[in-house]
Amino acid sequence: MLNKIVAVLKKHQNILITSHVIPDGDSIGSTLALGLALKSMGKNVIMVNNDPVPEMYGFLFGSDEIKQSSEIVDVPALCVAVDCTGLERIGDELQQIIIRRQPQVINIDHHISNTNFGSYNVIDPEAAAAGEMIYDLIAAMGVELNIHMANALYVALATDTGSFQYGNTKQKTLEIASLLLGKGVKSGIINQTLHENRSLTSIRLLAAVLPSLNVSEDGQLAYMWVDIETMQRLGADSEHCEGFVNYPKSIKGVKIALFFRQMDKHTVKVALRSKDDYDVNRIARVFGGGGHAKAAGCSVNASLDEAIRQVVGFVNKKIN
Amino acid sequence: MLNKIVAVLKKHQNILITSHVIPDGDSIGSTLALGLALKSMGKNVIMVNNDPVPEMYGFLFGSDEIKQSSEIVDVPALCVAVDCTGLERIGDELQQIIIRRQPQVINIDHHISNTNFGSYNVIDPEAAAAGEMIYDLIAAMGVELNIHMANALYVALATDTGSFQYGNTKQKTLEIASLLLGKGVKSGIINQTLHENRSLTSIRLLAAVLPSLNVSEDGQLAYMWVDIETMQRLGADSEHCEGFVNYPKSIKGVKIALFFRQMDKHTVKVALRSKDDYDVNRIARVFGGGGHAKAAGCSVNASLDEAIRQVVGFVNKKIN
Repeated sequence: MLNKIVAVLKKHQNILITSHVIPDGDSIGSTLALGLALKSMGKNVIMVNNDPVPEMYGFLFGSDEIKQSSEIVDVPALCVAVDCTGLERIGDELQQIIIRRQPQVINIDHHISNTNFGSYNVIDPEAAAAGEMIYDLIAAMGVELNIHMANALYVALATDTGSFQYGNTKQKTLEIASLLLGKGVKSGIINQTLHENRSLTSIRLLAAVLPSLNVSEDGQLAYMWVDIETMQRLGADSEHCEGFVNYPKSIKGVKIALFFRQMDKHTVKVALRSKDDYDVNRIARVFGGGGHAKAAGCSVNASLDEAIRQVVGFVNKKIN
Repeated sequence: MLNKIVAVLKKHQNILITSHVIPDGDSIGSTLALGLALKSMGKNVIMVNNDPVPEMYGFLFGSDEIKQSSEIVDVPALCVAVDCTGLERIGDELQQIIIRRQPQVINIDHHISNTNFGSYNVIDPEAAAAGEMIYDLIAAMGVELNIHMANALYVALATDTGSFQYGNTKQKTLEIASLLLGKGVKSGIINQTLHENRSLTSIRLLAAVLPSLNVSEDGQLAYMWVDIETMQRLGADSEHCEGFVNYPKSIKGVKIALFFRQMDKHTVKVALRSKDDYDVNRIARVFGGGGHAKAAGCSVNASLDEAIRQVVGFVNKKIN
């Protein structure tokens, strides 16, 4: 299939590359690596995303060339979507143009739930990141990786594998990562850029939130909470709470972890995480939310105390 | 040099392997991988450490065979020390026996500050972990890695590279990690075991320590501290502080991060970390410690306040 894709890419002079809304390191890295490779072949490449490139990826060469969908009025005869389960994942604006203009679409993705929406579909659920598939594609195109492509692919791989920690990391993933370092990728500096630019507010907030940690008697449920006064006092918002739910989750024996964040006097957002086999998506749905089996969220219209009482009570009943 | 070491190892039937006090994943993993490899060659191997194997590494095959120094009355004619900058790092008890009995000592280490204390010294500051050197040694010994050795080496590599995120991660490090996965290492499960089996004590301690966070006026130095009363009140010891220094380090703009841990009324241990180009090994050495450019440690004989005043004062002067 890769050779077919290479033939199609070679036939076209103008190519658009896009990825999913609210892009992460895999979507940005994959878009850039493929874009730079196609440019090196003399193609006219338009890279586009529904949303701006997150600041943390701004160091990647070419990231300033990624346009936003709102700047696009037409698409070329060939479009590539990477890391998108369905065409709607590219965002409404660009999707409408594609539906109207009917270009050929190459669909490159590693999600098992992919809907095969493309004219050509390369789906590999075994790939840890779309970037792993882009690595293979660039090799099949006969383009030698330069440092800029290598940096982009490193970010793609590192993002979707949680720095090579998750179970999706395969022998091949690490082999590619090793080759990328051989191309000159300074992974230490990249990881520092990605992970060590935390705001002081986020740490002050963590210090304020950790004492709220509560573990159920049987040790299977752990939760933390933060009230609106604390958020306001520290000038914190949602981005400063990122990853907080992983603290209760990291405790030995805990199966379900919750993080309650008071939004206003009558609204509490709840993040739910599960280790092992509990399906927190089903719990979140009882409270009008949703997500995945291992990570879900919901919003409860109640005071903080009442929201904690309701959700903790329900989860405790589910566990026992 | 490796071939020389292999010849020495082959000549001896009884071999003791040890590593540094308060062992981490690299010391335990390296001890086990080498121990299992030598056993597979029919050697009588004694694995020993000054301190017990931290619970989180208890899943590693053979970890229950690692004795504590207090159980050792004599040493064989050949001893191997891995991941130790100096002989004193193996702990007083075992060091005394070695000084008395004068066995041959093979010193395998990746710290640039190594004192070449062995009869044979293999020092490679380029190696990300001692485990990387043990990998090469096992290969030079002609022993094929089994899954138990591979798991031990994976833990060694992952520990000292912060899951392959730090700048010490080389092309070769990832190449070895890739080969280890090829041997059947389930890295996703191992990482869950390492990172999601945190003790409640460690989180309670983090909650108590985070409010001590102090950032210098220019934002380049950040530090935290914990006193002996807090440690005792929470029933915490050194393993519960693991990684704490990464919190000040993770703050945007911070170049040097410190963590002060009071051991008793007159002794304070200091962990030093650097981002960018500052060499904290040189700072640690001023205070009688050592380590790597980006990660070092020292012990200051002073009250907590005085130790903070001295080290923070010195670092601030170095930065400016």
